Amino acid sequence: MLSKRISRYIKSLQLKKYRKQEGSFIVEGVKGVTELMNSDYEIELLLYTPEYQNEFNSGIAEAIEVTSKELEQVGTFKSNASVLAVAKCRQNLPFDLNQGINLVLEDVRDPGNLGTIIRVADWYGISNILCSLECADLYNPKVINSTMGSFTRVNVWYHELQELLKLAKVPVVGTTLHGTNIYNVDLPQDALIVMGNESHGVSKEIEELFTHNVLIPGRGGAESLNVAIATAIVLDNFFR
Amino acid sequence: MLSKRISRYIKSLQLKKYRKQEGSFIVEGVKGVTELMNSDYEIELLLYTPEYQNEFNSGIAEAIEVTSKELEQVGTFKSNASVLAVAKCRQNLPFDLNQGINLVLEDVRDPGNLGTIIRVADWYGISNILCSLECADLYNPKVINSTMGSFTRVNVWYHELQELLKLAKVPVVGTTLHGTNIYNVDLPQDALIVMGNESHGVSKEIEELFTHNVLIPGRGGAESLNVAIATAIVLDNFFR
Repeated sequence: MLSKRISRYIKSLQLKKYRKQEGSFIVEGVKGVTELMNSDYEIELLLYTPEYQNEFNSGIAEAIEVTSKELEQVGTFKSNASVLAVAKCRQNLPFDLNQGINLVLEDVRDPGNLGTIIRVADWYGISNILCSLECADLYNPKVINSTMGSFTRVNVWYHELQELLKLAKVPVVGTTLHGTNIYNVDLPQDALIVMGNESHGVSKEIEELFTHNVLIPGRGGAESLNVAIATAIVLDNFFR
Repeated sequence: MLSKRISRYIKSLQLKKYRKQEGSFIVEGVKGVTELMNSDYEIELLLYTPEYQNEFNSGIAEAIEVTSKELEQVGTFKSNASVLAVAKCRQNLPFDLNQGINLVLEDVRDPGNLGTIIRVADWYGISNILCSLECADLYNPKVINSTMGSFTRVNVWYHELQELLKLAKVPVVGTTLHGTNIYNVDLPQDALIVMGNESHGVSKEIEELFTHNVLIPGRGGAESLNVAIATAIVLDNFFR
């Protein structure tokens, strides 16, 4: 049984303002919560339905048995018959831009896109993403949910981009419509891969810092690709 | 100014039941409506804000000037200051499975995923997708919106899959976790590429019909890829 106070608290974490204030966020569903429990994130509260008691009620300070209706009331899932956790936000850490392949996102505002990009980065073993300050918030429930647990393995660092990219010593690779066919480019071992906003792409200021302009060749009628799709294709070409 | 009757009618088209009953669907925003007007879809009604009068109010039988608030009330966009069209659904046509590269989707239920797959198919010049009957509805506004206009160029045919795939004479290619590294496979010229459900992947019955099992090699911690992402990577490998 959930108290009104806890219920209100969990619901409030759907908003960035309260996540920032409390330093906490929510994770919903079996996959996300399992990955959370196997990570170094600190869990402050766990809600589970009776069916999932054995799977999840272990070693967590505060754990409450609830109904799926209660889970759905406090969370964002239309249906959730399993589990919801409240965890403490982790500090997003600076990382060495000059080592390995790292991702840079300029103003990727759609939470589903950011989450999917984190998942695909994790698939290819990328552990660091640099996000501009206008990107969606990592701890937005939609971002967390679409990472399918990959948020536990990828460090997402928010910072103003331009000054950092100017200091980078590795190639800065971006996709543009006038780039070189990515199939024919000798892609570097260490690089920053920059992807832009859903509607406007990459800004002029950032594009000026590209050392490599690549193009994903299209053959049909679509004018552009979704940003998460483009990120995946570029990464696949880097790692193949 | 919108009458209550029209307002109610447009809103009802957010539900499959009424889309089926009326044979109509909605398209929102400049990109989608522009592509719609350049296609062979029949437009039955157009709503536009004063700023977009010149761009869109031409040659459409019924066109009504509205406010952006009215557009937002009848449509699904949080903000829409431009245009919304109601168009007649097109019949989804059977196509020759044995010619070229065609996509087959089994139970892709998320409208955003289906829309994104249609967009990426259009990018690579694929004009036919065969969908199982459990896939999201093409005319769901979220599908239409995430295609970014590509729904006008891709024929999406709904049919029970198993019987059709059994008759196919071309290779049937699917991704599984025990497949052969896609980078090392000699991919066929004509093929059916099969992608499965978001949670369960492809069913056993369909997997048994695969002639090629391929695998997108991962290097990180993620267990799987989003289905639209996986589709894009497979297509990129086919067409590179």
